[in-house]
Amino acid sequence: MKLDISPKIKAYLDAHPDESPLLVVELAEVERRYKKLTGLLPFAACHYAVKANPDPAIVKLLASLGSSFDAASAQEIQLCLESGATPDRILFGNTIKKQSDIAWAYSQGIRMFVCDSVGEVDKLAIAAPGSKIFARLRVGGEAGAAWPLSKKFGCTRDVACEIMIRAKEKGLVPYGLSFHVGSQQTVVEPHFAAIALTELVFDDLVEEGIQLEAIDIGGGFPAQYRDAIPPIEDFAETIIESIERNFEGRPLKVLMEPGRYLVADAGVLRAEVVLISYHKEINATRWVYLDIGKFSGLVEAEAIQYRIISEKDTDKEEDTARVILAGPTCDSIDVIYEEAEYYLPNNLAVGDKLYFLSAGAYTTTYSSVGFNGFPPLKCVCI
Amino acid sequence: MKLDISPKIKAYLDAHPDESPLLVVELAEVERRYKKLTGLLPFAACHYAVKANPDPAIVKLLASLGSSFDAASAQEIQLCLESGATPDRILFGNTIKKQSDIAWAYSQGIRMFVCDSVGEVDKLAIAAPGSKIFARLRVGGEAGAAWPLSKKFGCTRDVACEIMIRAKEKGLVPYGLSFHVGSQQTVVEPHFAAIALTELVFDDLVEEGIQLEAIDIGGGFPAQYRDAIPPIEDFAETIIESIERNFEGRPLKVLMEPGRYLVADAGVLRAEVVLISYHKEINATRWVYLDIGKFSGLVEAEAIQYRIISEKDTDKEEDTARVILAGPTCDSIDVIYEEAEYYLPNNLAVGDKLYFLSAGAYTTTYSSVGFNGFPPLKCVCI
Repeated sequence: MKLDISPKIKAYLDAHPDESPLLVVELAEVERRYKKLTGLLPFAACHYAVKANPDPAIVKLLASLGSSFDAASAQEIQLCLESGATPDRILFGNTIKKQSDIAWAYSQGIRMFVCDSVGEVDKLAIAAPGSKIFARLRVGGEAGAAWPLSKKFGCTRDVACEIMIRAKEKGLVPYGLSFHVGSQQTVVEPHFAAIALTELVFDDLVEEGIQLEAIDIGGGFPAQYRDAIPPIEDFAETIIESIERNFEGRPLKVLMEPGRYLVADAGVLRAEVVLISYHKEINATRWVYLDIGKFSGLVEAEAIQYRIISEKDTDKEEDTARVILAGPTCDSIDVIYEEAEYYLPNNLAVGDKLYFLSAGAYTTTYSSVGFNGFPPLKCVCI
Repeated sequence: MKLDISPKIKAYLDAHPDESPLLVVELAEVERRYKKLTGLLPFAACHYAVKANPDPAIVKLLASLGSSFDAASAQEIQLCLESGATPDRILFGNTIKKQSDIAWAYSQGIRMFVCDSVGEVDKLAIAAPGSKIFARLRVGGEAGAAWPLSKKFGCTRDVACEIMIRAKEKGLVPYGLSFHVGSQQTVVEPHFAAIALTELVFDDLVEEGIQLEAIDIGGGFPAQYRDAIPPIEDFAETIIESIERNFEGRPLKVLMEPGRYLVADAGVLRAEVVLISYHKEINATRWVYLDIGKFSGLVEAEAIQYRIISEKDTDKEEDTARVILAGPTCDSIDVIYEEAEYYLPNNLAVGDKLYFLSAGAYTTTYSSVGFNGFPPLKCVCI
């Protein structure tokens, strides 16, 4: 069967037959996607969410293309600075920060910080005086997201106002509002609703004598996993329409934080079949054990359903059967897909390779440092 | 408040106030527990389950005490060999092994392997000819285990027989049966039932002309988390009684694979409060964000409920209130305890330290390699 993998990635994998598991990311595809997204939303500053894939080659590429960055920690800020980003292009986007990390970031020239609680404002006032503050709103629409983010993050309209009033009192700059519609968001409406909400809070704050300047529309733009997704153009249109309706004629700076969208589809993860067996007393399904699992990068599996292909794929339905996919560690929770229905060829054998498509995001960094002694997932950027 | 932490660990932590998060393991306590367990079960070869905590200092200590090892991967075997264990003391205990890893282990002198499927026997016959084979039985009693292991591992009585017959046909040595009653097992009966099951399979195989020699009773011995557990003496008595009843007068080699029992209670994990906030629209509970979470070592949290103490602990109930504990990453699943009810002092503040007791097992290695840029959990053995 012809594998639906880019020729360049295919060539690299073929030249390194014994490296498994292995993630290969094609930088030209990252660049293409960056240019496409920034072309569709040219008014928005693109802050790459480094956590999606912090491979230095990716961060360097995006820095050279003029991208800005959304960093979650002091370590990610350091990486961005070392990769050529100037401090003014880096947003410290984690709402939970040690005061010592805030102070270090400030010493490096970082002046934009996100928070979602008054407690965080107090730390910022001490450790990053005069900086620009974003308040992160909790927004709806998570039903369409494969990996929701509202449980832990975000605040209400009232708390956002409290944060900004406190920020002003403490000598910080009440700068803008941020939100995140949830990662791998597959419907466009949540962006519309969230932008409308930011406008409400802008107005609330005008009454308090505070004029915000910016909104950070977060990320969430989807990658091509198994299910159909709207084209990125639909998200861009919705965002543009929503900003025009809500902020018509008013000056507004816009930031966005794509992560998954830029890197997921640029990567292919190759894994190897280690064992095939049956646990007939549980069910009749084949168990296919791979050399990658929940502890070596596939934490998102079940919620995120990768397209998986093999060299033995066939169009004949009778030649395939359902499988349970599991990882190689001695841990019962190291099962990749049990709920999600996956079918693989009946003649799949030990040693065969499987290819997880669109695996460039949220894989390497979720990888454990060495559970059961297995090394972290290796990423090669070509 | 007086912290219930060993003086030696307390002294180390006090001498390193700025390192956080930090796991400190007291080697003398590991040694004490090793001697206690092997004293209670002197006939059993103790194979430390390296995956529980592969810190080289722990592996070296146990090797010097004469311990044997249960290794889950080529990397863990290498670690044991480098730490002074001879190959005859190492069991390759993972039932899912690459053929190339089996061959490498064999080249290093490893001659004991565990499997739970006929497919694995075929790989072993090629890559580890003449080796001793254990078949891992699926056993009951998981209800008492905080971290069950039967979903993914183990085979039925019938398959165990198939495995041994196939092993013999292929020139391997049908050697023994293994099982695991589930990690952090809090009742003693499952060991009794499992040992009785092994005796049944011994008898089944005698009819096939195969005389097994050994049973590997696995691990599962519990650590002291929040709930009460039976003393280790109760497990030892049950095991002794069960072996006597089922194998009375017959020669039998016994192996065991303690992991958590040897190292968990020897370790204290210190973390720092990074932020305290309320998400009042969700509930009235305080959210306490720490510098450690699901991606930096606390994967088992909720199932495993550590004792957590702070310097501000008080006996007055009215001075404490329920909290939700969460980690520092930008991921909604990075919540440590939400279901489990934890209460902390009302005057807990940002910068205060929390101490997770009995955190020496299954923490460092579950740690992600750098999710959100945060480094893996550091372990110091003293």
